Amino acid sequence: MFYLFIDILGTVAFAISGVLVAMEKKLDVFGVFIIAFVTATGGGTLRDLLIGNTPVAWMLTPLYIVTIAITVLVAIVFVRHLSRFRKSLFLFDTIGIGLYTMVGVEKGLEAGLLPIMCIALGTMTASFGGVIRDILCNEIPVIFRKEVYATVCILGAILYFVLVNLSVDAKWAYVSGITFIIALRLLAVRFKLSLPNIHGAK
Amino acid sequence: MFYLFIDILGTVAFAISGVLVAMEKKLDVFGVFIIAFVTATGGGTLRDLLIGNTPVAWMLTPLYIVTIAITVLVAIVFVRHLSRFRKSLFLFDTIGIGLYTMVGVEKGLEAGLLPIMCIALGTMTASFGGVIRDILCNEIPVIFRKEVYATVCILGAILYFVLVNLSVDAKWAYVSGITFIIALRLLAVRFKLSLPNIHGAK
Amino acid sequence: MFYLFIDILGTVAFAISGVLVAMEKKLDVFGVFIIAFVTATGGGTLRDLLIGNTPVAWMLTPLYIVTIAITVLVAIVFVRHLSRFRKSLFLFDTIGIGLYTMVGVEKGLEAGLLPIMCIALGTMTASFGGVIRDILCNEIPVIFRKEVYATVCILGAILYFVLVNLSVDAKWAYVSGITFIIALRLLAVRFKLSLPNIHGAK
Repeated sequence: MFYLFIDILGTVAFAISGVLVAMEKKLDVFGVFIIAFVTATGGGTLRDLLIGNTPVAWMLTPLYIVTIAITVLVAIVFVRHLSRFRKSLFLFDTIGIGLYTMVGVEKGLEAGLLPIMCIALGTMTASFGGVIRDILCNEIPVIFRKEVYATVCILGAILYFVLVNLSVDAKWAYVSGITFIIALRLLAVRFKLSLPNIHGAK
Repeated sequence: MFYLFIDILGTVAFAISGVLVAMEKKLDVFGVFIIAFVTATGGGTLRDLLIGNTPVAWMLTPLYIVTIAITVLVAIVFVRHLSRFRKSLFLFDTIGIGLYTMVGVEKGLEAGLLPIMCIALGTMTASFGGVIRDILCNEIPVIFRKEVYATVCILGAILYFVLVNLSVDAKWAYVSGITFIIALRLLAVRFKLSLPNIHGAK
Repeated sequence: MFYLFIDILGTVAFAISGVLVAMEKKLDVFGVFIIAFVTATGGGTLRDLLIGNTPVAWMLTPLYIVTIAITVLVAIVFVRHLSRFRKSLFLFDTIGIGLYTMVGVEKGLEAGLLPIMCIALGTMTASFGGVIRDILCNEIPVIFRKEVYATVCILGAILYFVLVNLSVDAKWAYVSGITFIIALRLLAVRFKLSLPNIHGAK
């Protein structure tokens, strides 16, 4: 029940981020829906395929597809009444990343994977939807640009395992991981932190 | 037998559409074959992966790979003797879309999915090959451009379920779905129908 | 043991080719790691997904992820002390292609596929990592450019089946396939061989 709620919230957050990118590209209604759908389900689909959870999660219940459809409709109406959404795009993207990372970690644990693989799986769950969104919209994926992104997912997932090993209740460790990822990414962008560039100077 | 025939016909149609795009990009013989192969098998591969039908369909029989190889050879010879193929590209793409949508719906039903998921699966089967083709050839996917595309797949798949619910024989509902998709897309492009653009004016 | 060694060597070779492309694009440390990881595991992941080997190979042991991490670190340090790496990029890419083609053929045989499907699977194992690398780095995939690439994989895989049918020991046939692919690609590029372009003059 708790995990389902988190999953739906992440779906909404990523779907909105997909809508905003797609609308900037002036796609038609269905193009917008498809990009929102791919952004919201892409990471989880890759996750399920890699661990062999088929049919993939979104095919087993109408919950996700209906959530995304409603989100797209609401987002389109909402967008009409506001002018600029760059900040919201970033915020929703960040919330989605935090939520999906931990959902991915959880599924990795269920599949009996090693912690390092759970961390990788969580990071891929969080990033892949955005990567496809950007590739389909012909943009260089956000994840490869100059800000931290995958790094915060990995650190948040590591925090989860550290807390669980310190006997913190799994649910609290879970929420801490999500909060940490969201907070760290917001701070990183606020203070323009970025990973060291290997080329020195530039 | 009937479904196999439809499947092969769709493979030929999509392979030709792949050949035409690849030749326009002046790829070498193998590049052309790869693009044709990916266009023809991409949608079905995604479909089989999502529902867990592995090894995927084209690996279980030499039928598809041989069909595509022959199609590519014939298409290359054929292309040499004609000058412009824009219209054929569009026509073959349309036929492939109609056929693959219904093959996807059928496989979804076999996997016990809900009608809404069968419709989504059919649409993805029909669109994904073309999306990879366009991404590999560095074009913005046709599906996201200004004409209807996914919409006709969805409407055709819905028509199938409506007809079946009205007790129409499944095979006739199937053929009706395919015909409807092909006819609607041809009409839509002929009369320049397109989905409402969310940005109003433009 | 023998196959594991080949697999690790291919992982190192492809990871380095990923590092070099990613550094040319001036990505940050994590971007470089991700591209290296995707280049090294992309082909094998596609291979495992297509034949239904899930969880995919790299998730079942920390071996690959650790190998890639070490390779990336060493490659970054190594790169700092040398100026130009175009030739090494090409060489490592070629070694990776030879190794992965035969690993793919081997896995296809284990899955009971027909020789023609093993050849296709080997070629996809060898090419897909590089294709994703190039797509993510916004380059037209090397595989579709004017040099031979998939062709040598296919010829090498065919050589393997020919030798095995001539009762050559499987291990020697395996090594011959790898060597043939590497040698043929180096020769092809050295002497600027390329497949006939279908457009004649060009």
